[in-house]
Amino acid sequence: MDSAIDRHLRCPRTLSRRASDDYRPPFPIVVARAHEDVTQVVMAYLGVQYRGDEHRAEARETLRRIVGQFGLDDGPGHHDTTHHRDAQGRDNLVAVGYWRDPERYRRWSARPEVAGWWDADERLRAGVGVFREVVMPRVDGFETLYPFTDGLPGVGAVLDGVSDEVQEHAYWGAMRDRIPRSQTDRMTGSGELEVRGDPAGRAVVVGHDDVALIRSGQDWSGTEPGERELYLEEVEPELREAMDFLRDRGERLGCYSNRYVRNVHLDGRPLDATYAISHWRSLDRLERWAESHPTHLSLFVAYVRRAKRLPRLRLYHEVSVVGADDQSYEYVNCHPATGLLRDARRPD
Amino acid sequence: MDSAIDRHLRCPRTLSRRASDDYRPPFPIVVARAHEDVTQVVMAYLGVQYRGDEHRAEARETLRRIVGQFGLDDGPGHHDTTHHRDAQGRDNLVAVGYWRDPERYRRWSARPEVAGWWDADERLRAGVGVFREVVMPRVDGFETLYPFTDGLPGVGAVLDGVSDEVQEHAYWGAMRDRIPRSQTDRMTGSGELEVRGDPAGRAVVVGHDDVALIRSGQDWSGTEPGERELYLEEVEPELREAMDFLRDRGERLGCYSNRYVRNVHLDGRPLDATYAISHWRSLDRLERWAESHPTHLSLFVAYVRRAKRLPRLRLYHEVSVVGADDQSYEYVNCHPATGLLRDARRPD
Repeated sequence: MDSAIDRHLRCPRTLSRRASDDYRPPFPIVVARAHEDVTQVVMAYLGVQYRGDEHRAEARETLRRIVGQFGLDDGPGHHDTTHHRDAQGRDNLVAVGYWRDPERYRRWSARPEVAGWWDADERLRAGVGVFREVVMPRVDGFETLYPFTDGLPGVGAVLDGVSDEVQEHAYWGAMRDRIPRSQTDRMTGSGELEVRGDPAGRAVVVGHDDVALIRSGQDWSGTEPGERELYLEEVEPELREAMDFLRDRGERLGCYSNRYVRNVHLDGRPLDATYAISHWRSLDRLERWAESHPTHLSLFVAYVRRAKRLPRLRLYHEVSVVGADDQSYEYVNCHPATGLLRDARRPD
Repeated sequence: MDSAIDRHLRCPRTLSRRASDDYRPPFPIVVARAHEDVTQVVMAYLGVQYRGDEHRAEARETLRRIVGQFGLDDGPGHHDTTHHRDAQGRDNLVAVGYWRDPERYRRWSARPEVAGWWDADERLRAGVGVFREVVMPRVDGFETLYPFTDGLPGVGAVLDGVSDEVQEHAYWGAMRDRIPRSQTDRMTGSGELEVRGDPAGRAVVVGHDDVALIRSGQDWSGTEPGERELYLEEVEPELREAMDFLRDRGERLGCYSNRYVRNVHLDGRPLDATYAISHWRSLDRLERWAESHPTHLSLFVAYVRRAKRLPRLRLYHEVSVVGADDQSYEYVNCHPATGLLRDARRPD
């Protein structure tokens, strides 16, 4: 039985974890492990926003260009692409890239093919909007969770392997207990989002300390037909209801943005996988929602009651808590409720 | 905003509580407060077990005798009486008495009218069984929770008032955070129950450290008709399902005993109130069940979704963690799965 906190990230605690030393989780879970030279990772959500059939081709072409840029030197070690429709009825295609080294990301994003493209005035005149939401979690500020050990999605794909079975899971609070910073820091967050620039044109959102984000994924590509049907008919609707709630009514709970996205091929064909990616004012707001909101608990119950009959469904998550200086959010030609724009205030 | 841990019971922490200092609960809750001279309380569950209509009169007469004994000098400051049918189909009438001082309880229980009656061989020859399950929580080892401030049921009735609104509630782990011992002690429990004597005749169960018990109550006597119907038709069935599960299948989860009881008058007429009283191997077993079991979470969701429409429903609880020497369990002429007898092992 291992700790989710890797040996080189352990330190004398000023805050106790919730699990007692003799706690034994009811089923096995592993976390991603990284070599000690990994100190900070990068998660760059690069999106294209469009409305209606007439802009679909341009949007796909734009996504293709972004993914093409990933192939340049210093590009991400891993990426995936998704589609979702947002609360305003716009379609969005997002490519997320993962780097295990922020210096490589900085070199990549400073390349003329990349920086020049994002900064060009053509972006403002295009028939589609684009946005980039980039967070750079430090290794003591993120955690992962997988009930499988092969083919890790998301950030796990750019790290170096998996742990043994870990102790900190299957109780509320385990997410926090898996984040190394929780040993000495409650990560309570402070400040608020601020928008600079023109929300209807080119705008940036300035983050605050301890913004939390969670990517929580579902992959049914390896399920048998009966299992697939069980998931899609009896669990997925509960997931969708919870995600719609967060998307539409999460603001007062501290959820800045929630996207429930479908993994897609570059040509738009859907894959049998989805994930939710949401941004939160702080980790404790995410905890409160997950632990107590009826929509999330109904989903939890719907899944737990069927878990034994869903052996090939792959669920996983990654959770990050990031400092103000380790975030950047830019929106170009997007509607003003896109992403973290919605809840950002104008400076006085 | 007050702490659930009263000022004179606070001490330097070696364990942090789960709530951060800036946590604000979403609705107000108070806890019972006791003067500093209260160091230990007593909760004595005195039961009568019978089978079938032919023994009902004797059972009621026996309950009446027990409650009559409560009227003697040094009797409890408060009591109530209940009925439930157990997993073996036996009826049980239980009177629970509360004392704010263990010395008074000891004097009372040593009185010839009390001790002589319980110890008499007639108890073994009666048409009904009797049992007494007595716990004596110390003030640093129990907590209470009420969303109302008048007419406190249970242990609150023998204490001295209520707190201001407290901070430690409405999150999983708040129960533990309200118990003063949690400041320095995980209360993880150790040992196992042992039975001495003859389980089919007169037997005692010897407890172990940190047995936890919860009384969780529901009083709909003050509800309007629509609210009453909503509770009884849409929430109570979920409660019953969760309680039946714990009663019948709780053993492997660390639940030694669960009784979902109806408050009754001495003559058997039901009151519009129920409570569950359960005993656990340790507080963390109770936490795990409450936080993660589908039956309990379904109940939680069923209630939360309707809470605003149940304004006069009175829910409350009291939770105790008791040392081995502060428990005594005796069963006379009861079936061998009664109460804590079921999970107690015979010494080698």
